Amino acid sequence: MTERQRFSVAIVGATGAVGRELLDVLASRRFPMHSLRLLASARSAGTVIEIDSATAALLDNDGAKQPLVVEELSAKAFDGVDVAFFCASGNISSQWVETATAAGAIVIDNSKAFRMDPNVPLIVPEVNGETLLPAASKTQPRLPRVVANPNCSTIIALLAIAPLHRAVGISRMVVSTYQAASGGGAAMMTELEDQARQFAAGQPLTTNVLDRPYLFNVFSHNSPIGVDGNNEEEAKLIRETHKILSDDSIGISATCVRVPVLRAHCESINLTLKAPLSENEARELLRRAPGVSIVDDRPNNRFPEPVNASGLDDVLIGRIRSDASQPEGLGLNLYVAGDQLRKGAALNAVQIAELIATTSAVQQPSLNPC
Amino acid sequence: MTERQRFSVAIVGATGAVGRELLDVLASRRFPMHSLRLLASARSAGTVIEIDSATAALLDNDGAKQPLVVEELSAKAFDGVDVAFFCASGNISSQWVETATAAGAIVIDNSKAFRMDPNVPLIVPEVNGETLLPAASKTQPRLPRVVANPNCSTIIALLAIAPLHRAVGISRMVVSTYQAASGGGAAMMTELEDQARQFAAGQPLTTNVLDRPYLFNVFSHNSPIGVDGNNEEEAKLIRETHKILSDDSIGISATCVRVPVLRAHCESINLTLKAPLSENEARELLRRAPGVSIVDDRPNNRFPEPVNASGLDDVLIGRIRSDASQPEGLGLNLYVAGDQLRKGAALNAVQIAELIATTSAVQQPSLNPC
Repeated sequence: MTERQRFSVAIVGATGAVGRELLDVLASRRFPMHSLRLLASARSAGTVIEIDSATAALLDNDGAKQPLVVEELSAKAFDGVDVAFFCASGNISSQWVETATAAGAIVIDNSKAFRMDPNVPLIVPEVNGETLLPAASKTQPRLPRVVANPNCSTIIALLAIAPLHRAVGISRMVVSTYQAASGGGAAMMTELEDQARQFAAGQPLTTNVLDRPYLFNVFSHNSPIGVDGNNEEEAKLIRETHKILSDDSIGISATCVRVPVLRAHCESINLTLKAPLSENEARELLRRAPGVSIVDDRPNNRFPEPVNASGLDDVLIGRIRSDASQPEGLGLNLYVAGDQLRKGAALNAVQIAELIATTSAVQQPSLNPC
Repeated sequence: MTERQRFSVAIVGATGAVGRELLDVLASRRFPMHSLRLLASARSAGTVIEIDSATAALLDNDGAKQPLVVEELSAKAFDGVDVAFFCASGNISSQWVETATAAGAIVIDNSKAFRMDPNVPLIVPEVNGETLLPAASKTQPRLPRVVANPNCSTIIALLAIAPLHRAVGISRMVVSTYQAASGGGAAMMTELEDQARQFAAGQPLTTNVLDRPYLFNVFSHNSPIGVDGNNEEEAKLIRETHKILSDDSIGISATCVRVPVLRAHCESINLTLKAPLSENEARELLRRAPGVSIVDDRPNNRFPEPVNASGLDDVLIGRIRSDASQPEGLGLNLYVAGDQLRKGAALNAVQIAELIATTSAVQQPSLNPC
C-alpha cells in the first residue's frame, strides 16, 4: 500500500483486554488509519481512553495526543468506517456485525460468532493468509465483508504445527493447554491479581468472576461441555484447526486447562506425522517459519515460558523432541508459549487488516481509502 | 497384625516437606509404632518438632504430647530401628541406606536412588502391592531390605491407568503434567508464597530456589535433560511405569511442567487401549478402583483441581472422555489430580510400610516387633 491509503477504523469492545491491546498493536505497527472510533456497550460508553503519541501520530489531528471517548454501539456507529475490529462477545458480534458491513465496513471479528460460517474466512496470516489474496479465489472475486480471527489456543498451536503439516502432513495431534487468565478477559486477570493480594494479606480469596479459587490452582477450561465431553475451547481448537488447514482428516484430542498465569498460553503438543521427520529437520523447518522463535536450550533448561512470551509478537517453540513411543520419525513433541492478547488475538486481527489493506488497494477502491 | 506388633520407626529428612507429611500420615493411620526417631543433616539436627496428640498416643511415652528433637544422621542412628523412611535426596539415600539395612532396618526409600535397581521392588500398593506378599515370590523368600517409593507423578498417573491396563491393556500413553511446588521441596513452596507477597507489595520477585519467576508463570520441569530430550522427571515417569506395571511395551510420551500450585499435581493423560473400552465402561472400572475418586461433573464443570485434591488421600479422576481421534473405543482421555506430598510421597510410603508390617508378622519375626 502507498502512504496515502489510510482507513477509518473502529474497535468494538475497546475497553476490554483485547480492545486495549489492539490499540497498542495498531500504533506499534503504524496501521494506516486516519481516524479511530472506540465503541462499547452503554455501560462503558463515556470511558476516556488516553492514546499514546504513536497512535495520535497516525490520526488526522496533526499528531496531537488527545484522549478518545468511548461511544455506545448504535445503528449509526459504523457510518464511514472502513475496518471494524470486533473484540467483544459472540453475542455482540451476532447482533452488530451486519450493521457494520451494511454501513460498508469490513469486519475482523475476534469472537466465535462467524468462525465456522463457510462463507467467512478464518485466517492466521502466516498459515492461510494467502487465501485472502485476490489470486487465491476465482469464485470469490471480491473481498469478504467479514473475516474471522481464530481462537487464541488455535492460533498459537497453528503457528507451530502448520509448517510441519505443510512439509510432511500431520495425521494426529494430542494437545494439552496451560491457558492464561487473559482469555477470560480483563476481569479474570484482575481477579487473579486480587487473589494474590488477598493471600498476602491473609484474607479469604474472593471469587466473583470464577466460582473457584484461581491463585495456586489449575482447572479445566471454564466453558460449557458438549455431548462428546469436550468443552467449547477444545471443540474450537479441533474444528478451527481443520478449517484453517483445510484438512478435516487430522485427528485431534485436546484438553484445555487454565493455569494461574496472566497473559500467555502454553501448549504441550504431541504429533503423529505422515512421513518421518527427524528432530533436527523439524527444528530447521520451524526456525525458518514465520511468526515463531525457537527457545530450546536443553543444557540450561530454557524453554518457552509465559513470562518470556508475554508482550512478544512471536510464538515461542521448544521441547522439540522425537517421540520414541511412535514409529521412528513419525512422533514429535513440541511445547509452545504465545501471548494470548497479542498473537492470540489483537496482533493476528491487525495482521488480517494489513492483508486486507494491501488487497483492497488492488481490488476494492470502494473501500474509500483517503 | 495384632495390637502387640509395633515397630521402631525412623524418618530421614524429617524436617522436609515429605518428612513432615509422613509424621501426619503415620499418626492419622495409627501406624503401629512404639518409637519414632527423627533424623536429618547436621544443618537441621537439633530442630524441635512438635508432635500432635495422635502421634504421641502411638508412642511408648504414655501418650504424653512432647516435642521430638531431630538427631543428626550417623552410623549409630539406625540402631534398633525396624522401619526407616528415607525422605531426603537420592545422594543421602545412596550414602545411608546400607547403614540402615545393616543395622537391621527395612528401608522405604522415597528418593530415586534405588527405584530402578532390579533387586528393589518399586511399589504402589494398590497397583503392585501383592508383589510384596510372601506368596508372590518363590525366588525371594524373605522380605526385601529396601522398597522404593515411586516418583510422585508416576504414582498419581498409575492409580488411574493401572485398572484400565489390567482390564484391556494400554499400548500408548501421552501425558502432560501440571506439577506443584511441593515436588521441589518446602523451599520451593515458600518461594512461591513469598513471590505472591512480593507481588502484592509491589516488590520485585526474589528467585533463590529457582532461577526464574514462579508466580504467574509455568515452566518445563527443573530437572536435567537427557540425550533423548526428556528431562529426568519425564524419564522417571516412563521407566517407573514400565517397572511397576511389569510391561516395557507401553509406549509413553511425557511432558512434565511446573505450575504455580502448592501441593497437588494434575496430569492430562491420553491413552491408546489394546481393546475397546467405552467411556462408561472406563468410568465404571475407575469407580471400583482403590485409591481414587471420580470427579467428573460435566454440567457444573467440576473436575479434579489442586485445591480440592490437596490434603486428600485419594487421587481424583475426571474428564473421562473417549478420544475420537483414535479408532472407536481405543482412545481415552483422563485428567487426574493428586496430593503430591500425600499419595505422591508420604501416604504411599506408609502404605508400603503397612504391607510390610502385615507381611513381617507372618514371615520375619527377626523384625523384632515388640
